Amino acid sequence: MSDRPQKVFIVEEGPREGFQFERGPILTEDKIRLIDALSTTGLRQIQTVSFVPAKNVPGMADAEQVVAGFERVPGVEYTALWLNETGLRRAVSTGKLDIHGHISLCLSGEFLRRNQNRTITENYEKQREILRTYRDMGIRVRMGALMAAFGCNFAGDIDPKNVVEMIGDLLRLSQEANVTLDYITLADTMAWATPSSIRRVVGAVRSRYPDLQLCLHLHDTRGMALANAWAGLELGIDRFDAAVAGLGGCPFAEHKGAAGNICTEDLVFLCEEAGIETGVDLEKLVEAALLAEEIVGHPLPGSIKTGGSLNPYRARSGMNS
Amino acid sequence: MSDRPQKVFIVEEGPREGFQFERGPILTEDKIRLIDALSTTGLRQIQTVSFVPAKNVPGMADAEQVVAGFERVPGVEYTALWLNETGLRRAVSTGKLDIHGHISLCLSGEFLRRNQNRTITENYEKQREILRTYRDMGIRVRMGALMAAFGCNFAGDIDPKNVVEMIGDLLRLSQEANVTLDYITLADTMAWATPSSIRRVVGAVRSRYPDLQLCLHLHDTRGMALANAWAGLELGIDRFDAAVAGLGGCPFAEHKGAAGNICTEDLVFLCEEAGIETGVDLEKLVEAALLAEEIVGHPLPGSIKTGGSLNPYRARSGMNS
Repeated sequence: MSDRPQKVFIVEEGPREGFQFERGPILTEDKIRLIDALSTTGLRQIQTVSFVPAKNVPGMADAEQVVAGFERVPGVEYTALWLNETGLRRAVSTGKLDIHGHISLCLSGEFLRRNQNRTITENYEKQREILRTYRDMGIRVRMGALMAAFGCNFAGDIDPKNVVEMIGDLLRLSQEANVTLDYITLADTMAWATPSSIRRVVGAVRSRYPDLQLCLHLHDTRGMALANAWAGLELGIDRFDAAVAGLGGCPFAEHKGAAGNICTEDLVFLCEEAGIETGVDLEKLVEAALLAEEIVGHPLPGSIKTGGSLNPYRARSGMNS
Repeated sequence: MSDRPQKVFIVEEGPREGFQFERGPILTEDKIRLIDALSTTGLRQIQTVSFVPAKNVPGMADAEQVVAGFERVPGVEYTALWLNETGLRRAVSTGKLDIHGHISLCLSGEFLRRNQNRTITENYEKQREILRTYRDMGIRVRMGALMAAFGCNFAGDIDPKNVVEMIGDLLRLSQEANVTLDYITLADTMAWATPSSIRRVVGAVRSRYPDLQLCLHLHDTRGMALANAWAGLELGIDRFDAAVAGLGGCPFAEHKGAAGNICTEDLVFLCEEAGIETGVDLEKLVEAALLAEEIVGHPLPGSIKTGGSLNPYRARSGMNS
């Protein structure tokens, strides 16, 4: 039996993932061109940039100019990432972005220490702080995220019980702040997920919180992203983060093994072929993927942009018959 | 519910797929090195070469020398491909290969015409002929294959009912010849399969022939190969063709869109992480994949050879804890 959803919501993270990761430099106008191309595909949320210190992420030094440059299309949400209040205030200052708050916990203490230089306990306090900031600034909090939900290069395998417990922590933190989360993102931060661990973790979460909407944030470092998405779809997951052309990393460049997010157009193909509605025009999305490849100047990992969808063949065989 | 098998049998087709596809020239001694490396991985069947006219497939002109050169390891079957009696006799003449007969039908008349210049009716007669040849030469017939079982660039979508019917034809042909097929391979010749069509087709076949062993021959042109394999595993499929490093095509070379077979080491990773035994030493297989990449001289598509398996991280985190 399958709980496959009738439709899915895909958050396009390619611009942010790609521009902060690619060696570049990528011209500001090219970043704007890609966002504008994505705006015409039917995608309903595009994460455009991140507001982080330019000294850490030089590719995001022009975040404000990128946001100023793209054209908002009605029906599309344009979001951004920030890691602290300074970044959040920069995002708000653009006056052009859809600002939604989020909180985030991490299953691996060691990863948290290396990545954000804080302990798990300190991180809870940080989330309380940011929840206060959101309240003070009148920003609605929409999402809670769990990093390293499927495994960690430092902590190893993650017990699904711990994922369930930490979802409880996210819900308690939001209750304390009088906030209702719309959904929780399970992030496969270091690409440990496989279809069987998707089943274990999502299954455990579902047993405890049957009505909670879940989102999967998948990386393709080990080639499992689409198989993982399928396993998620079979369990009724109807929300995914994805990156056009698989932006965010390239196994064939010097970034050894650091592949990007699941490729948006490949995910759209997977869903549409299963009769799951995405709202996305696949051919237009493939054009955007080819543009992304042209902009970064090297091959990107997605398959449908080279392999092609089945629709042109279907049209031809229909005419033949 | 899942019918996932406890173990799977993987037929390694990388040497044949790769050497007939790569532009080369690839040295005979390199072909031999790769086969010898694969022999140490725990794989139990390696398809080594194809016996086809050198004018059609220059990369296989040295098939006899390759077969003469590799070292047979006990417990491993070394097979080859042929398309007619001339090829079969060449394979037998080596005196070193495991010779098993197979018959093959195709769901698409148009593909058959373009690929083998015969009609579906002529093809039935050809299979009867080759069955007589096998009988005359004392060769046991083991496998029946269905090409284009999931769709065709010329015929479009394939109705699962037609797959079920054509399996009936394969079984009738073999009965006529007093032959019992061990299994039937459903070949996704033009990479039309998706997890949902795997479910439809395999489901339809299972309903009619619940005890028939099935093998999946998957291509990764549209990035679906591992998701398709997972869908197959969930339905109890326990036999797969695969190619080390995804040999057989490279989406990043000039062979636009013609990706190879499902990548063996990625498939092994998928299975082992789900507790499905493959008998393969993943780290040794990754070494063979890296050798394949070195031999062809350009990046090959598999992910685990760059992303790495999880075992080293597990060992490290275990030591840390």
